[in-house]
Amino acid sequence: MQGGLFSFPPDKKDSSMALNVTQKIIKDHLVSGEMIPGGEIALRIDQTLTQDATGTMAYLQFEAIGLPRVRTELSVSYVDHNTLQMGFRNPDDHAYLRTVAAKYGITFSPAGTGICHQLHLENFAKPGKTLVGSDSHTPTAGGVGSMAMGAGGLSVALAMAGEPYVIAMPKVVKIHLTGKLPGWATGKDVILHLLGKLTVKGGVGKVMEYAGPGVATLSVPERAVITNMGAELGATTSIFPSDEVTKAFFTAMGRPEDYVPLTADPDATYDEVVEIDLSALEPLAAAPHMPDRMVRIADLDGMKVDQVCIGSCTNSSYADLKAVAQILAGKRIDPTTDLLISPGSKQVLKMLAAEGLIDPLLDAGARLLECSCGPCIGMGGSPTSAGVSARTFNRNFEGRSGTQDGQVYLVSPQTAAMAALRGAFTDPATWGEAPQKAEFPAEVPSIRHLFLTPPADGSDVAIQRGPNIAPLPPFGALPAAIEAPVALKVGDDITTDHILPAGAQITALRSNIPAISEYIFSRVDADFVSRIKKLGKGVILGGENYGQGSSREHAALGPRYLGVAAVVAKSLARIHRANLVNFGILPLLLVDKADYDRIPAGADIRLETAAIAPGQPCPMTVAGVGEVMVINDLTAKELDIIKAGGLLNQARRAQA
Amino acid sequence: MQGGLFSFPPDKKDSSMALNVTQKIIKDHLVSGEMIPGGEIALRIDQTLTQDATGTMAYLQFEAIGLPRVRTELSVSYVDHNTLQMGFRNPDDHAYLRTVAAKYGITFSPAGTGICHQLHLENFAKPGKTLVGSDSHTPTAGGVGSMAMGAGGLSVALAMAGEPYVIAMPKVVKIHLTGKLPGWATGKDVILHLLGKLTVKGGVGKVMEYAGPGVATLSVPERAVITNMGAELGATTSIFPSDEVTKAFFTAMGRPEDYVPLTADPDATYDEVVEIDLSALEPLAAAPHMPDRMVRIADLDGMKVDQVCIGSCTNSSYADLKAVAQILAGKRIDPTTDLLISPGSKQVLKMLAAEGLIDPLLDAGARLLECSCGPCIGMGGSPTSAGVSARTFNRNFEGRSGTQDGQVYLVSPQTAAMAALRGAFTDPATWGEAPQKAEFPAEVPSIRHLFLTPPADGSDVAIQRGPNIAPLPPFGALPAAIEAPVALKVGDDITTDHILPAGAQITALRSNIPAISEYIFSRVDADFVSRIKKLGKGVILGGENYGQGSSREHAALGPRYLGVAAVVAKSLARIHRANLVNFGILPLLLVDKADYDRIPAGADIRLETAAIAPGQPCPMTVAGVGEVMVINDLTAKELDIIKAGGLLNQARRAQA
Repeated sequence: MQGGLFSFPPDKKDSSMALNVTQKIIKDHLVSGEMIPGGEIALRIDQTLTQDATGTMAYLQFEAIGLPRVRTELSVSYVDHNTLQMGFRNPDDHAYLRTVAAKYGITFSPAGTGICHQLHLENFAKPGKTLVGSDSHTPTAGGVGSMAMGAGGLSVALAMAGEPYVIAMPKVVKIHLTGKLPGWATGKDVILHLLGKLTVKGGVGKVMEYAGPGVATLSVPERAVITNMGAELGATTSIFPSDEVTKAFFTAMGRPEDYVPLTADPDATYDEVVEIDLSALEPLAAAPHMPDRMVRIADLDGMKVDQVCIGSCTNSSYADLKAVAQILAGKRIDPTTDLLISPGSKQVLKMLAAEGLIDPLLDAGARLLECSCGPCIGMGGSPTSAGVSARTFNRNFEGRSGTQDGQVYLVSPQTAAMAALRGAFTDPATWGEAPQKAEFPAEVPSIRHLFLTPPADGSDVAIQRGPNIAPLPPFGALPAAIEAPVALKVGDDITTDHILPAGAQITALRSNIPAISEYIFSRVDADFVSRIKKLGKGVILGGENYGQGSSREHAALGPRYLGVAAVVAKSLARIHRANLVNFGILPLLLVDKADYDRIPAGADIRLETAAIAPGQPCPMTVAGVGEVMVINDLTAKELDIIKAGGLLNQARRAQA
Repeated sequence: MQGGLFSFPPDKKDSSMALNVTQKIIKDHLVSGEMIPGGEIALRIDQTLTQDATGTMAYLQFEAIGLPRVRTELSVSYVDHNTLQMGFRNPDDHAYLRTVAAKYGITFSPAGTGICHQLHLENFAKPGKTLVGSDSHTPTAGGVGSMAMGAGGLSVALAMAGEPYVIAMPKVVKIHLTGKLPGWATGKDVILHLLGKLTVKGGVGKVMEYAGPGVATLSVPERAVITNMGAELGATTSIFPSDEVTKAFFTAMGRPEDYVPLTADPDATYDEVVEIDLSALEPLAAAPHMPDRMVRIADLDGMKVDQVCIGSCTNSSYADLKAVAQILAGKRIDPTTDLLISPGSKQVLKMLAAEGLIDPLLDAGARLLECSCGPCIGMGGSPTSAGVSARTFNRNFEGRSGTQDGQVYLVSPQTAAMAALRGAFTDPATWGEAPQKAEFPAEVPSIRHLFLTPPADGSDVAIQRGPNIAPLPPFGALPAAIEAPVALKVGDDITTDHILPAGAQITALRSNIPAISEYIFSRVDADFVSRIKKLGKGVILGGENYGQGSSREHAALGPRYLGVAAVVAKSLARIHRANLVNFGILPLLLVDKADYDRIPAGADIRLETAAIAPGQPCPMTVAGVGEVMVINDLTAKELDIIKAGGLLNQARRAQA
């Protein structure tokens, strides 16, 4: 299938040029495109990962493509999100994921083994490799010099099918580190500092590449904290070079053979440079409700802390939890505070146990939760009403904790442990000596035997499908004419949360398109689903910035399933527009935005699809109104995808 | 308030008579009544315990009574049920419980410390003491010779107020143990055997008192398994004598001073005798969906097991989990099976850690959950659709696992571990050598510093009340006539899980009667709540053993809030019957059980409440059927409580 779906011109990049780490990996994986920032490039993908919450859809899509086996070097399916299992849906999803993995050649990590990014770092990530994962914190693997990118489930499914991953060539930002972290400052404070400086939009279209003499002072776990939470900058990814520190990490992990050195050429150039003097950093927090609302812990002195949570893909390493155990040893947490700890992996837990470090956690009053994402994604561990929660996590969006008025501060494990002891944020100047940075012990236990390795031939494996796991409904090609009423007319700034709400009840249905589609626009118009079902088809009329917010594919899949053929709007948000294309819904723009007011809800629309050409206006007939001009910003390739009925149909056709 | 609410005649019992253990404790605590089986007795209560799911209501009721401090020797408030915290309700409840405990002189055990019964056994239970707990498995403490009874929250609130606990004088059944458990047979198999023999109704109105030479062969953890699951017999409680084995247990627990010997007099008599030859026992399972559906594990040979759960107040001791670790050591569980382990307390977890026994669990692929009730009460850990789950728990009611068609088999930890290794039930004859029974190590770590001891004067403590903690709704007195339709007709063996399902979503509403009432009978009849709301009132028609299972008083409070005036049944389970009385619902029995079939759902009932006298039949008019005779087993005192509209109304009146 390589080259089957798309055709790419040969690489014309000058190989003699000095390159940074990002450019080296891109150059090494470039299937098509020019390495000019903003231009479209297609990359060969070496590894993929999924977690269970996005994985079920990714594998349903992979199944729909129809290949007998994945074509990557390595694909891993982790279960770490929906591990509470309140009812049959979660465990049925896990059984589906386990059997799909065996059938198609995917390594499977069962629930409780650990958090995908921590496990991938410890066991599979490699310098110089490309990794696409259906989780936004996939860049964690950048801590060992892997170019690791978060993507939608369909992109991961296509990568597993051997298709290149298409992105805009990023700008490469050099984060030039000097000095050495002092006292209580940690890797978390580096990324918090950067977020305060650049904001959550500061990384859009960019790779944050760490360089400078400060890099050598940071351990791999510290580097992984930084690349992990680089996702909050909106960056394409973040990456560290692979150096002697990386080599020591691979040796400790029992896989020295996976180490390769990878550093920027001495005269490499960057699109931007940001300077950080590590020695000037101090404990910081991201204040509610955005990861870039940076405050000094010293400035929070005296603020009561009702709950402390330590863990998540950001801060659940052996080094992190050892520091916590050292801080808590021989002490008792404040009785008005609750402390929850979720180790990142069984390897971490085993290392703690081996050194007798579980006792100080338990004796201090900490609650030891399963090795999983847990409270970070609102899977339990919600704080009290209006409670202040100090968390070592990466996101503090309003309500994400499960408590709508919870006040979440994102901090380092060290800051979290001190807050638990004192029941409040206090000035780090009063904390005394910081615990020493943990080095890996001479003997690091392996848990690699817990991953289920797929059989060489999985063709006989029967996939286990619970009643909530529905095959992807087939979608037809774009018809010659769209004849459908305006099934819904909405205003400006409609988010994907408006189109498809989140929440545990609805999210449990993500492997079931017919079921989850029942919730499309349910909070905007309770009658929408029954109406469009009666109509059989429809067009959505939107205002400005239609589809902003989260990248969830179901906000396009659900409407497509219900018969939405086109979205006609004043303007469209970037990611949702891409999802509409991927699932075969026409994204159209009104040439004259004033026409929005002329088109009533329910009006019958007629549009000859043959008249649609990339970037060209074309007429749309609105019954009772007359002709209205619409335009598109589609490339020829995108229009082909829509005409095929979506990217999956096109991939399937390429297979046939 | 002692003696304020009730007045009791002086004890007239002859003290020279030979007594069994039960009689000794009752005699020692008798405030009023004759020790004649079936007669009403009132007992002084030494200790109380609550868990969080029932505790919030118990403390709201204690607050309503208006005392400044509890009047027991010891009252402990444990948090072990609602520990997942999906939203603000659970943590708000915990904060309420913590502050109420400090204010009123109650010891508080924070979430994650362990399961109430395991913790109480390890730290507080004493031979010869009376204990009332708002959890049906309170009899666990009978393992050390405490007379420990499960009760509704209101009974616990009254006990905390110094009121005697009123029960029918139980028959005392001697369970005469001979021999010694062989091979793979365990304490769990003793109680499973007894359940198979006596059924879930076999213990109603009885105390199961263990005696005979076999007693000395059982450790305290084994005894506690047996008394714990004696709750499934419907027994008032179960009790073991306090002997040298008990003494060794108290020494291991670091509280030798709490030991007192307590055995039956040599010529003590019993109302009934059941013989069990321990040496004839073998691994058993309670098959779906009732704890008395006994099958031999050997007869299940070859049945696929999809999930294994180890833990709960029944089987989560150090000895249990050490046996599991020994069985799993060096092996890997079947990859198609999921194994979840919830240790009973941090003490247990610390002992495992000290002996390096966490590693074999993790290395075998087990998932280590928090020290809490967890999957036993459907708080996560649900099995796959139609999945077979082997659980070391005490109840396997349909749907309790969170998966409606889950097939739950109740087994010993040893049987569970073997099922996890093999992915199936197999014949114990193929299991090889059973692991040795674990003795406590020389040094048993204490976690007693984790309990929050209340201040001597809690009057200044401010109680923290989240928005979900609603004050108790006021209830009116019993009207002169009940005129209401049969709002629901149900069959035999309706459990309190049928009346009010467990599970995180519903259990989170335990401190909010209007909110939780929306779920009354929701799994039996989805229309019940809307129907009775329209009707405004109603009568429930039940079969045999109505209200068996957990002690949750919300199964009475919710119906009362919705307007249920009476339950008319063939027979009623003890604790639920008491809860009906406590909340002012008339518990009536059909004189002729055949009338059950004559009364259709929806039939209008009329009953003059003045015609009701303790133990007397009275006529009930059923529209379209005619007159049906109902009887009650109420005492005069209980009838007064119902006429007042419930015990709280009466207690408030007594305080005024």
